[in-house]
Amino acid sequence: MAPPGLRTQIASNDLHHIWVRGLNLTTEVMGSLSFTDMVFLLIASRLPTREERRLLDAVLVSLMEHGLTPSAAVARVTYSVSPESLQGAVAAGLLGAGSVVLGSMEECGRILTQVDEATASGRPQAEVLEEVVSDYRVRRRRLPGLGHAIHTEGDPRTARLFEIAEECGFSGRHVANVQELARVAEGTSGRKLPINATGAIAALLLELGVPWQLHRGFALISRTAGLVAHVGEELSAPITPTLRELLREGDGPPAAAPTKGA
Amino acid sequence: MAPPGLRTQIASNDLHHIWVRGLNLTTEVMGSLSFTDMVFLLIASRLPTREERRLLDAVLVSLMEHGLTPSAAVARVTYSVSPESLQGAVAAGLLGAGSVVLGSMEECGRILTQVDEATASGRPQAEVLEEVVSDYRVRRRRLPGLGHAIHTEGDPRTARLFEIAEECGFSGRHVANVQELARVAEGTSGRKLPINATGAIAALLLELGVPWQLHRGFALISRTAGLVAHVGEELSAPITPTLRELLREGDGPPAAAPTKGA
Amino acid sequence: MAPPGLRTQIASNDLHHIWVRGLNLTTEVMGSLSFTDMVFLLIASRLPTREERRLLDAVLVSLMEHGLTPSAAVARVTYSVSPESLQGAVAAGLLGAGSVVLGSMEECGRILTQVDEATASGRPQAEVLEEVVSDYRVRRRRLPGLGHAIHTEGDPRTARLFEIAEECGFSGRHVANVQELARVAEGTSGRKLPINATGAIAALLLELGVPWQLHRGFALISRTAGLVAHVGEELSAPITPTLRELLREGDGPPAAAPTKGA
Amino acid sequence: MAPPGLRTQIASNDLHHIWVRGLNLTTEVMGSLSFTDMVFLLIASRLPTREERRLLDAVLVSLMEHGLTPSAAVARVTYSVSPESLQGAVAAGLLGAGSVVLGSMEECGRILTQVDEATASGRPQAEVLEEVVSDYRVRRRRLPGLGHAIHTEGDPRTARLFEIAEECGFSGRHVANVQELARVAEGTSGRKLPINATGAIAALLLELGVPWQLHRGFALISRTAGLVAHVGEELSAPITPTLRELLREGDGPPAAAPTKGA
Repeated sequence: MAPPGLRTQIASNDLHHIWVRGLNLTTEVMGSLSFTDMVFLLIASRLPTREERRLLDAVLVSLMEHGLTPSAAVARVTYSVSPESLQGAVAAGLLGAGSVVLGSMEECGRILTQVDEATASGRPQAEVLEEVVSDYRVRRRRLPGLGHAIHTEGDPRTARLFEIAEECGFSGRHVANVQELARVAEGTSGRKLPINATGAIAALLLELGVPWQLHRGFALISRTAGLVAHVGEELSAPITPTLRELLREGDGPPAAAPTKGA
Repeated sequence: MAPPGLRTQIASNDLHHIWVRGLNLTTEVMGSLSFTDMVFLLIASRLPTREERRLLDAVLVSLMEHGLTPSAAVARVTYSVSPESLQGAVAAGLLGAGSVVLGSMEECGRILTQVDEATASGRPQAEVLEEVVSDYRVRRRRLPGLGHAIHTEGDPRTARLFEIAEECGFSGRHVANVQELARVAEGTSGRKLPINATGAIAALLLELGVPWQLHRGFALISRTAGLVAHVGEELSAPITPTLRELLREGDGPPAAAPTKGA
Repeated sequence: MAPPGLRTQIASNDLHHIWVRGLNLTTEVMGSLSFTDMVFLLIASRLPTREERRLLDAVLVSLMEHGLTPSAAVARVTYSVSPESLQGAVAAGLLGAGSVVLGSMEECGRILTQVDEATASGRPQAEVLEEVVSDYRVRRRRLPGLGHAIHTEGDPRTARLFEIAEECGFSGRHVANVQELARVAEGTSGRKLPINATGAIAALLLELGVPWQLHRGFALISRTAGLVAHVGEELSAPITPTLRELLREGDGPPAAAPTKGA
Repeated sequence: MAPPGLRTQIASNDLHHIWVRGLNLTTEVMGSLSFTDMVFLLIASRLPTREERRLLDAVLVSLMEHGLTPSAAVARVTYSVSPESLQGAVAAGLLGAGSVVLGSMEECGRILTQVDEATASGRPQAEVLEEVVSDYRVRRRRLPGLGHAIHTEGDPRTARLFEIAEECGFSGRHVANVQELARVAEGTSGRKLPINATGAIAALLLELGVPWQLHRGFALISRTAGLVAHVGEELSAPITPTLRELLREGDGPPAAAPTKGA
């Protein structure tokens, strides 16, 4: 028998069956549930309502692609030198979904969770948000979920996400908190700091009950699909030869020898 | 201007827009397309029909989970020691989707593509399949897509996948080829070698027009979701303490010192 | 010509030569320099003295192995299912060198750098260290570089590392700071918090002039070698079959079906 | 007690000790052995002779750096977007050490092992080598270990590696086999196919007794150090802003909308 600590409630199997969250995979899932239904089922331990499914689909499709991002380039370059391992190319691309770009939704989700807990315990929203903004200001760090390097006047995905959330009945306190956070941050800094897609999604995932520790995971699910598409394009229209040429052009003899210590 | 070789047709953006395969992400995708629609769009450069969507959903949900697999355990253990990087935990888990387990669909897809090309050029199916089976036999390698360590009497997902493919009008020559491949392999080896989910999916992805080089990618898309769910469970019901204890129990002083060469 | 921003001073090449930090690889490095010399050369842009080499070797060998760690198990399991990609198995193992275990030297190095800057600007060491300890206490986080899950009465590597540093003339202010940090932490918490190998190494790498952002990298260099050895052992004495059996033992039908939302 | 299958002979520990291959880490390794000694110890279960150490050092330093390679660029780009995870940046870089570039030493080592077994069983060397060359020719694949994209007239590391091997007494049958393999391949193809560093190193690692399955691992050990140096340079002289700008320059509205299937 397995040690008691080695069990999962997510899925199990025997000779003739596979179950996921208690549903029979072949008779109750395959053919009737969508990918998005099953993602919700695995995370929330229940099937989504029609509105939850629509909102989760909107979240997932909004993050899937943004052109030739660093992550996409990384996956394509890695595939070109390690074609035996598509999993390696995709893994390399995902490793770029960190705190600076996609992964910022994790830190934003953590902040929104803290704000929610603080206001739930009676502190005024304004006070809590000002504390957050001031804390980032003192540490000279950028607030996650706000601003975008390309969409400097506003991330086009944000308004649409909030619109769909409104239609689906998920425009709750986390959405209000992230919007107020942006207002306070803009007021304090005097700069435009519109909510970007990762900030909006952090709020929406909290509305859907997903803990902040997993927020980055939804970017990973979505980007994996985008990265596979990029590897597919690399097979027919490779960017790697051009990139390698560019990287090599700095080559040639060095200017001077180093100091020797020994 | 970018060097001409550095372009993608998958997605692009400007200050106020994001396009994916020519569709406006916010007005034509978000709120109307599902995750699965968009995966199809990215890979095939067009939207799926209702039947294509249903078949692709069946493929994706069938691979998402199989319990506490080595990959799931790897992601959970990695998260427990590197919680700052969910992307690292998921990447580590995906790196196990190689030739032995999930990734076998790639090699199976390659074989089915070669069989299809050979029969298209006029060679009899039986002859081509016998050559394939004999080639693996000589090299003492297992045919990919056949047999399963747990589902030894037949992978329950296979029959269901073929049933859905039939309903959707995708029970074509690749499905026939993989079924005949299994028959020849069983006849030659005298052992039960039922088609497993990766063999069935290789055939179905070819029916959907996906080149074999990308087959493993659909396992990656699907398993990423499963791995995120496992990390979620690790937060509340960790398996890592038990695993670490087990790994440590072999510790203690060594039996003997090594021979010294120098 | 390459865009000016795409250049490295680390190494370059032409048709007949390779240079590293200005040295001709074949005539000035191969055959005369050791691996450790070249690591120092790449990071510091000069060759090490005899003492610097000895200290760096001590650092590198002290981190290479610690038995069947989670990282080692991850690399072995990953190799068993993805044998086409040794790089994938090693990468998966390295992804575990995060903030909780090996990577703690990064955060410890950052703290020691801040302490050094603060005392250099005139603040008393005691005050600065008490502030650090109190900050971690308030946030209920463990101080990096102190304590060890197995070597609870003291990490055997620490005393030896400090001894070698003393012999090599590198027992400077960073060593003093980490020792004082441990004393303050023990005094405040009333618990034994001996400096572990990662805390000692963070101090020694600062003594060698390595910025804290790269400290984790020395664990990666060292553990890569250990992981390759583990994959080698997996080929002859695999642990994976036993591990997979243990993971599978929790399988079987689930207790109950989930609530359905839709 | 641990299940019998969960043990390693590589290293172990108890409250006060760590052992590696039976040596006490603190009293017998730290301060006396170099990194290279310990790598040899872990892989071969014994300490190297002076000649073995010199040869292994030459192997390791020859692979560490080759300028701004795709792998180095991948690690730098990944670090710039995931600075919380140096292990992720290094892992991403290592994932490029696959079959096309560094990892080719694995396939070359496998071929040399087969050649050695075939000649040991009495088949003439010439016949065996011609069979190998012809097999690759038929499958239209490049022979691993021969030719180089930049060093088209000969890899400068190869002659030096063979020279050091000769001095160290390791110029044995595997070196002879790879040299003859290159001659046969050049004769058959009519093209220059000089042995590159990975081909030479495959032969030398076999001379040192390292099985071909681990050859790629020596590239990983070596490149990890190079990648850490590149991340260090990225901190002070980043290439990522230039690369991102280049990748973005292809952006803008798409030419046309896709065909819709549904």
